Amino acid sequence: MTDAGHVPGSVRPGGRTARIRTAVLRAAEDALIECGFAGVDLAEIARRAEVGKTTVYRRWGTPQALVADLLQDMAEQSVRRTETGVLADDLRANARLVVDTLTDPRQGALFKAVIAAATHDRRTAEALHRFYAARITEWAPVVDQAVARGEAPAGTDAAEVVRAVSAPLYYRFLVSGDPLDRTVADRSAHAAASAAAAGAYVR
Amino acid sequence: MTDAGHVPGSVRPGGRTARIRTAVLRAAEDALIECGFAGVDLAEIARRAEVGKTTVYRRWGTPQALVADLLQDMAEQSVRRTETGVLADDLRANARLVVDTLTDPRQGALFKAVIAAATHDRRTAEALHRFYAARITEWAPVVDQAVARGEAPAGTDAAEVVRAVSAPLYYRFLVSGDPLDRTVADRSAHAAASAAAAGAYVR
Repeated sequence: MTDAGHVPGSVRPGGRTARIRTAVLRAAEDALIECGFAGVDLAEIARRAEVGKTTVYRRWGTPQALVADLLQDMAEQSVRRTETGVLADDLRANARLVVDTLTDPRQGALFKAVIAAATHDRRTAEALHRFYAARITEWAPVVDQAVARGEAPAGTDAAEVVRAVSAPLYYRFLVSGDPLDRTVADRSAHAAASAAAAGAYVR
Repeated sequence: MTDAGHVPGSVRPGGRTARIRTAVLRAAEDALIECGFAGVDLAEIARRAEVGKTTVYRRWGTPQALVADLLQDMAEQSVRRTETGVLADDLRANARLVVDTLTDPRQGALFKAVIAAATHDRRTAEALHRFYAARITEWAPVVDQAVARGEAPAGTDAAEVVRAVSAPLYYRFLVSGDPLDRTVADRSAHAAASAAAAGAYVR
């Protein structure tokens, strides 16, 4: 099998490399959604992505490395924070984004597959933790801005407030199975904002 | 293979049945801890439990049914709520119990295996949801008592406050990989109590 389909020299290497990565990551995503982590077979993914098997093996090497790269890509592509000027509103936007993602059939299945894989694979767990660290870093400034405006006390741990918004949503998604909808999202954001205002997240 | 080891008539049937269940559930627990859900093989569990294979197949039938029965047993055996007369203290006891369980190497591995299995098996998910519903029901009265004492407003959703205590702990355990210790437990309990006092969980 070769990486056919392009006339040599007709495409910048960066462009072609980027296209291959996109095709392979989409195929990996499909495999995770359909079959879970056990479905991430490099040869099958190369076939689905219409990319040379050798390329996939050389570039990613293992299913773990491919899933780690997918998580890296998800972090890069994911939605920027909302800044409304009111902490409760920013946190509500964050909570709704999380609920919309987890309740989307494809995205929800993808997150379940990756989180399940992380429970028994260290490399996937590390990639998952980097993904969430990136999301927390993206949203933390809304809390720091709220502290600057006097909506929460100085010393408030911004990352912990952001975690507090997502936590009840993931708890329902992965653990308790209770309903997950925008009402729940709004309540989670409201609770985190209330607790932050009360100083519960001061370091 | 037979269920040998007891002189017929020397043990009440209920006692023997209960002992078989205990031995099989402990063997299932060991298999989950060592190999995850994929390690739950009924024949192998019968061998480990020193129980007849036929008995295990007849009584449980499938790995899913066995894990569901294990979760049922875990719910029955799990620790009763703490009632100190102060909501924040009751919730702190709950949070510390959750952290102690999830950070225990065996219990942590067991919970990870079952939660991962629940992401792709409906029957295990239902059993998991029943387990958490039982835990929430066990702890909800501490919130209702707090409402009666005036520590939180009338109409506070007790179940939601109990979920709010556990949620940040499971989020770290399964998703973000941030540290999980008693400081985190105490902060989670304090945040839930603050948010409840502020009326964030009024239905």
